[in-house]
Amino acid sequence: MPHANCALVEEIFRRARFIHSLGIELVDVGPGWCETKVLVSPSLQQQHGFVHAGVVMTLADHTCGGAAGSIVPDGKDVLTVENKTSFLRPAAGSVLFCRAQVLRLGKSLAFVEAEVTVERDGKRVLVSKMSSTLAVIDAGRGN
Amino acid sequence: MPHANCALVEEIFRRARFIHSLGIELVDVGPGWCETKVLVSPSLQQQHGFVHAGVVMTLADHTCGGAAGSIVPDGKDVLTVENKTSFLRPAAGSVLFCRAQVLRLGKSLAFVEAEVTVERDGKRVLVSKMSSTLAVIDAGRGN
Amino acid sequence: MPHANCALVEEIFRRARFIHSLGIELVDVGPGWCETKVLVSPSLQQQHGFVHAGVVMTLADHTCGGAAGSIVPDGKDVLTVENKTSFLRPAAGSVLFCRAQVLRLGKSLAFVEAEVTVERDGKRVLVSKMSSTLAVIDAGRGN
Amino acid sequence: MPHANCALVEEIFRRARFIHSLGIELVDVGPGWCETKVLVSPSLQQQHGFVHAGVVMTLADHTCGGAAGSIVPDGKDVLTVENKTSFLRPAAGSVLFCRAQVLRLGKSLAFVEAEVTVERDGKRVLVSKMSSTLAVIDAGRGN
Repeated sequence: MPHANCALVEEIFRRARFIHSLGIELVDVGPGWCETKVLVSPSLQQQHGFVHAGVVMTLADHTCGGAAGSIVPDGKDVLTVENKTSFLRPAAGSVLFCRAQVLRLGKSLAFVEAEVTVERDGKRVLVSKMSSTLAVIDAGRGN
Repeated sequence: MPHANCALVEEIFRRARFIHSLGIELVDVGPGWCETKVLVSPSLQQQHGFVHAGVVMTLADHTCGGAAGSIVPDGKDVLTVENKTSFLRPAAGSVLFCRAQVLRLGKSLAFVEAEVTVERDGKRVLVSKMSSTLAVIDAGRGN
Repeated sequence: MPHANCALVEEIFRRARFIHSLGIELVDVGPGWCETKVLVSPSLQQQHGFVHAGVVMTLADHTCGGAAGSIVPDGKDVLTVENKTSFLRPAAGSVLFCRAQVLRLGKSLAFVEAEVTVERDGKRVLVSKMSSTLAVIDAGRGN
Repeated sequence: MPHANCALVEEIFRRARFIHSLGIELVDVGPGWCETKVLVSPSLQQQHGFVHAGVVMTLADHTCGGAAGSIVPDGKDVLTVENKTSFLRPAAGSVLFCRAQVLRLGKSLAFVEAEVTVERDGKRVLVSKMSSTLAVIDAGRGN
């Protein structure tokens, strides 16, 4: 695996307004992986006071995009085809951390996983896991 | 199927701050189904100018919660266990509409589906479909 | 939608030895849909005496392939990328019926759903539902 | 995590006739994990000569059941609620190996993952990955 296409990943995060709306930050990126985080504010909560599943899925989906984007060839981009998320525990914590890892990159598809964790008693606890398929598309097509 | 538990569904929408942040509105609810919509603003976009997958998933997940919540017994509530979303087409449009329908409600689990559509040339076009499992929990437990 | 490519669908069923091993039969096919069934024998059971989830998934996956295969262009074939199956009720019955329907066929991907039903008290009861993504590939590539 | 409930796991494999039909073998089991394999015979193939997705899903699903079964309390059993499988590469090889691992066991639900690998050039190659939710049920209920 070659070096990461950091320029594309940074663009994926810089140009996504919804990601800014939520305060999701790109933490680090390498070839085939991506790390992000989001500070939990009350505006991200659901009716029981936990972080809304939609925030967790947004974080995981976008981080999967970053991981896949880091290793697609020049002139290519990525777009989510489908994903599945398991909610293992309530997302209770002041910060959500996410790490996505590419399982396989083919010519037209990428298979990626993401784990969302919180810090509890000094330890990272897994709260959600996403399994995602992304399409490798021509850059600039946006579709 | 009895009448819908509208009080619970309205509470699910009223008390979820993230849903308000995004401008998601409860449109209608009946026994085992729920309809919602969201006006698309630039702050909901991803890097290609389409609505972010996270918005689509938030809308679909919360509407699934509304559909399941409409028919759980008194004293019960619902919480998402897992979901899968297929992104059939880019979510391009000025309004996203969502309708969720319960496929089966058991004692401890509900199976629900949601369709997200946009209006294009006067017709509703399916952009995403979610398949979700929710847990039936005791109200007030929040977990 | 044009007429169905029945030749490809029949080949998908005729040449799949595992499908014969299980006794899965092609019932009918049209443009974008496919119907199949399987007689339940003891050799298809799991440890509680119900039909094994693997049989249900095999039936649904292959029927999704038939539905997508019915409308791909000449010279093309299909291959499963991923699928998700919800098990709503135990698959108890003497015959499993399956109907798959394409939700969207793009250039490189098809989104398909399948419902597996049994007959109980003269009515069809939904036991499982699959949501699947298939790749549209060149025929003869097998990959 | 305590010792594995090997008796339940062995029963899950011994009593499932479909598992015997396919030649799936229990290889090893420990607290929260399970390993299995199946020798690939022509009767397990699909139309392109690869192992049928249904075989891969059956193997992965049953191994997830073994992993969850290994740590449920006495008097409990498990039943698949839903699963999602990603098919990363064609399952080409003479033996399929599977290892399932519990991500989280709650009172009523278990979240489990399984990886299916083949041996190629002396190395294990990941061909499929399953993410599954199982219900923890009372033993003997079978539902």
